[in-house]
Amino acid sequence: MMAIRRNKVSVIGAGFTGATTALMLAQKELGDVVLVDIPDMEDPTKGKALDMLEASPVQGFDAKVTGTSDYKDTKDSDLVIITAGIARKPGMSRDDLVNTNSKIMKSVTKEIVKNSPDCFIVVLTNPVDAMTYSVFQEAGLPKNRVIGQSGVLDTARFRTFVAEELNVSIKDVTGFVLGGHGDDMVPLTRYSFAGGIPLEKLISKERLDAIVERTRKGGGEIVGLLGNGSAYYAPAASLVQMAEAILKDQRRILPSIAYLEGEYGYDGIYLGVPTILGGNGIEEVIELELTEEEKQQLDKSADSVKNVLNVLK
Amino acid sequence: MMAIRRNKVSVIGAGFTGATTALMLAQKELGDVVLVDIPDMEDPTKGKALDMLEASPVQGFDAKVTGTSDYKDTKDSDLVIITAGIARKPGMSRDDLVNTNSKIMKSVTKEIVKNSPDCFIVVLTNPVDAMTYSVFQEAGLPKNRVIGQSGVLDTARFRTFVAEELNVSIKDVTGFVLGGHGDDMVPLTRYSFAGGIPLEKLISKERLDAIVERTRKGGGEIVGLLGNGSAYYAPAASLVQMAEAILKDQRRILPSIAYLEGEYGYDGIYLGVPTILGGNGIEEVIELELTEEEKQQLDKSADSVKNVLNVLK
Amino acid sequence: MMAIRRNKVSVIGAGFTGATTALMLAQKELGDVVLVDIPDMEDPTKGKALDMLEASPVQGFDAKVTGTSDYKDTKDSDLVIITAGIARKPGMSRDDLVNTNSKIMKSVTKEIVKNSPDCFIVVLTNPVDAMTYSVFQEAGLPKNRVIGQSGVLDTARFRTFVAEELNVSIKDVTGFVLGGHGDDMVPLTRYSFAGGIPLEKLISKERLDAIVERTRKGGGEIVGLLGNGSAYYAPAASLVQMAEAILKDQRRILPSIAYLEGEYGYDGIYLGVPTILGGNGIEEVIELELTEEEKQQLDKSADSVKNVLNVLK
Amino acid sequence: MMAIRRNKVSVIGAGFTGATTALMLAQKELGDVVLVDIPDMEDPTKGKALDMLEASPVQGFDAKVTGTSDYKDTKDSDLVIITAGIARKPGMSRDDLVNTNSKIMKSVTKEIVKNSPDCFIVVLTNPVDAMTYSVFQEAGLPKNRVIGQSGVLDTARFRTFVAEELNVSIKDVTGFVLGGHGDDMVPLTRYSFAGGIPLEKLISKERLDAIVERTRKGGGEIVGLLGNGSAYYAPAASLVQMAEAILKDQRRILPSIAYLEGEYGYDGIYLGVPTILGGNGIEEVIELELTEEEKQQLDKSADSVKNVLNVLK
Repeated sequence: MMAIRRNKVSVIGAGFTGATTALMLAQKELGDVVLVDIPDMEDPTKGKALDMLEASPVQGFDAKVTGTSDYKDTKDSDLVIITAGIARKPGMSRDDLVNTNSKIMKSVTKEIVKNSPDCFIVVLTNPVDAMTYSVFQEAGLPKNRVIGQSGVLDTARFRTFVAEELNVSIKDVTGFVLGGHGDDMVPLTRYSFAGGIPLEKLISKERLDAIVERTRKGGGEIVGLLGNGSAYYAPAASLVQMAEAILKDQRRILPSIAYLEGEYGYDGIYLGVPTILGGNGIEEVIELELTEEEKQQLDKSADSVKNVLNVLK
Repeated sequence: MMAIRRNKVSVIGAGFTGATTALMLAQKELGDVVLVDIPDMEDPTKGKALDMLEASPVQGFDAKVTGTSDYKDTKDSDLVIITAGIARKPGMSRDDLVNTNSKIMKSVTKEIVKNSPDCFIVVLTNPVDAMTYSVFQEAGLPKNRVIGQSGVLDTARFRTFVAEELNVSIKDVTGFVLGGHGDDMVPLTRYSFAGGIPLEKLISKERLDAIVERTRKGGGEIVGLLGNGSAYYAPAASLVQMAEAILKDQRRILPSIAYLEGEYGYDGIYLGVPTILGGNGIEEVIELELTEEEKQQLDKSADSVKNVLNVLK
Repeated sequence: MMAIRRNKVSVIGAGFTGATTALMLAQKELGDVVLVDIPDMEDPTKGKALDMLEASPVQGFDAKVTGTSDYKDTKDSDLVIITAGIARKPGMSRDDLVNTNSKIMKSVTKEIVKNSPDCFIVVLTNPVDAMTYSVFQEAGLPKNRVIGQSGVLDTARFRTFVAEELNVSIKDVTGFVLGGHGDDMVPLTRYSFAGGIPLEKLISKERLDAIVERTRKGGGEIVGLLGNGSAYYAPAASLVQMAEAILKDQRRILPSIAYLEGEYGYDGIYLGVPTILGGNGIEEVIELELTEEEKQQLDKSADSVKNVLNVLK
Repeated sequence: MMAIRRNKVSVIGAGFTGATTALMLAQKELGDVVLVDIPDMEDPTKGKALDMLEASPVQGFDAKVTGTSDYKDTKDSDLVIITAGIARKPGMSRDDLVNTNSKIMKSVTKEIVKNSPDCFIVVLTNPVDAMTYSVFQEAGLPKNRVIGQSGVLDTARFRTFVAEELNVSIKDVTGFVLGGHGDDMVPLTRYSFAGGIPLEKLISKERLDAIVERTRKGGGEIVGLLGNGSAYYAPAASLVQMAEAILKDQRRILPSIAYLEGEYGYDGIYLGVPTILGGNGIEEVIELELTEEEKQQLDKSADSVKNVLNVLK
């Protein structure tokens, strides 16, 4: 007879996003959390983990949070979240970014699957479609177990701007995006609502276009404001929502970066599509009829992903 | 007939602690949150606030979070939390730290009370006993409305270490400290329990002494690990617990840095004592009989505070 | 300088629905809760309240829950929820039900406003459109402060059935209803979605019609199963969601039974329409363009309400 | 590779306590919930379950709740809670109650273990020490998997009365009881605190004795008030806290009715003692040194249990 054991979630990369992700996982008691970074950062990683753990008696959550640079500590993780990677620096070509982060993906994935051969992996590192693909190739896991995040975050930003525009609760605004992150995002405003009411009936076309555009540039807006670094609160929250859907087998309908084999007419690429996320990871890719314009935008988004993948070959 | 309006909480200082405090306030829907920093940091402050707001649709909390450098935006705050101030740098004398932060306290307090003459203020800036006193003097608010934080955090660390030692849930471990922060902390282990059981019955004296010592050095442990900066998750959680006790009128028994007028034999200083925190701020200072040893330690702690106050005069 | 005081919510009627409402209000720490019933039921009312209060240390909520038959105990309530009234018994004509419950509404409303002249009132008692009207007339409060519940519950049932049909999380299903409760409900399936995807694309027309029909008969389904009594968990949850929207000034978009003065072409009746609920109660009635068929159904629903109101005259 | 599957919890007995337990399990998303009652009550059981499920979209919890009279629906439950049984009626001897409920325990346990041979079982039915023993004997499960509830509830009542007496938050009051339920309860007030402060320092001996006495009679107080039936909110909350400790492997220190083999000098009986509850059920019985008076009271409590057990032989 087996004891009931708590889930275990590892977060690779202990920067702002990784650390905030660890905090939010622990706050929701989704499992014990292992925060991992490179040996040079071992002490700061341990420091952040300990600081979080010391918040637990006050916030009332039961979750062990530990910091490490040794992947052995991630052994038998149920789910692993990858936030590691470098950000694009001034003067760095996109190809350099892709190649550097892809190497990081392969290196961390090797360690992840060695220690947790049956885990789920959720990837945040940019360019996320391609990086998820790199992880998938290295991991040797079934496609439903390797998933990228972008749509939950894009949708969250869209919902924030709509709620602000209408001055209503964020709880009642829904949004819908397809395709890649940022400029390649394909927002489906006809599938976006406030209290069930189509946004077109509540917001002028001009304002709605401005909100879509602001969403597309949402990451850049934060980068511009921070001056040094990029967003981490909303990205972390988004990762945790996907993790929760899997760990609690919720079968939520969330946009994921999924490996496509024919869906939407694409084959062999990772792309942002609506999915059902549950105890099997991506349990289903939901195929929607698209308008011609939407399909064209999605093609463009897919082309972007393919271009990045070509860099990797 | 008045509408019901949401509480408003301002957080002064948008560093790691201030920002994490803002996030935790919003997560608990304790009110709309205004994050304030100096004009030079206005954009990063706005960036952090926007990033948090963009997490709200995903985490499901209804709270406006805004960043600003203009105190007018804090107008009519119900409660203000001060995390602003500099950290002690290598080579800086303690007196320099005290004088610099005291000037910051006076400057921000002036702005706070100009815009929110009826607010509650909770102070975190170090050395916190003296800084709370500075704020109190400048604010001109009744003593129950100006409160310092240290004991909630010290207790949280103590509880963390005990839970780890016993391998039990943090939910069932309680702790108790008096006096100042860090080295001046007076831990009352005889008032500390696991599941109601006195710790002395569960942990050897040697191990318990080690835990007390580790708690005393708890801030330094994190500083040492991080290498650059100090703890912010547990301090933020502690501030938010005190804010919640006031904003939800919970009459919680929590250690606060309170202005004493005769209690425990001290007069005219701020010192860490057990209090009842509710809709009136510090509603009561609870006086405990102390052992001679405990009283001596508390005297030492009070002397430390007085020495710092003398620097200010 | 005023202390912060906790909200106070009174629940009139301590039957299953009233008691469950009180529990859910307390669990969410929305305020101190006063549960009120007639003098004959004073002891059982006190017993239920005490039992709930005794659950509070375990569930961790800070809310005083008290039972009473004395309206003086409801003094200065911020919000009052009315669940009192009789259920239709075999052999009782609808008119008898209407007249009996209307008398109860007038009697309890008199007591409510005498003790809390500035409160908000949310009504559940059936037939709810007419009963909300009775309360409105008696209370002398502005129309935004007297609100009926039916659409939140109808929508909840609809969402439950859709989530079950699609085997997805209830978190991602939205629904939309207009008009009266039960048979008079006007479901707007074109404004109902799963993960933002119109239900028509996911569920066959036949199955969707069956779900709509099941929703219309949703109250009866529970009555039939229970054999003795009617639903209380979902009705209580619905009342509490409306209360929360007001008490936390959330500006949620929720269906409410609102007093119409021209909206949707009706005047001087209470009818279920989409509203914005916030710190001012009904802050706005949202007017939607309806298809001809929907408008006809809504007219029929309005006629039903008027017929009941005629009974009252 | 296995999918992550949600926990499954079955609740035997769909009366007020069983139904409230099911609601609270679902609200906390501790698993899918199966509510079971006898065939005659199948429809009401289904009705209650459906009503709860219809509350889920409003309250936002993802948990399937189903009602049944067929134990096959409980298949592969991780944890089963037994609330079934009759209440003592006027004129019924205690022995009759014991024998009737023991037969019910044996009958439901047979069905439980047939369908879930590896489950944990938590028992509430009175007299609970003896009924837990009956379940243990019938189940053939290891002793750590069969647990009775009484101390969590007794402690909750004690904490409620103390918090009321001191007018402080229930969050800061702890209590401690040993032994049987009700009259046989052995309260250890020296291990009971408010904010870590021994109650003896805060409450007069007279008042504290009155609170202890009120706690002992706590079940009767509710029975007296309700007039018809007994407490269910606080009992349900208590069961759910024990279930949560096991299902989330929290290693909480909670009083449980545990099978003793030498601990506290007793052998072969179930008795209320402090335990560590985690993923292995009762992971440890904590032995405390007792004063002579406490030990005498505990002996009396144990004698009561043995007397009831003799009825069963």
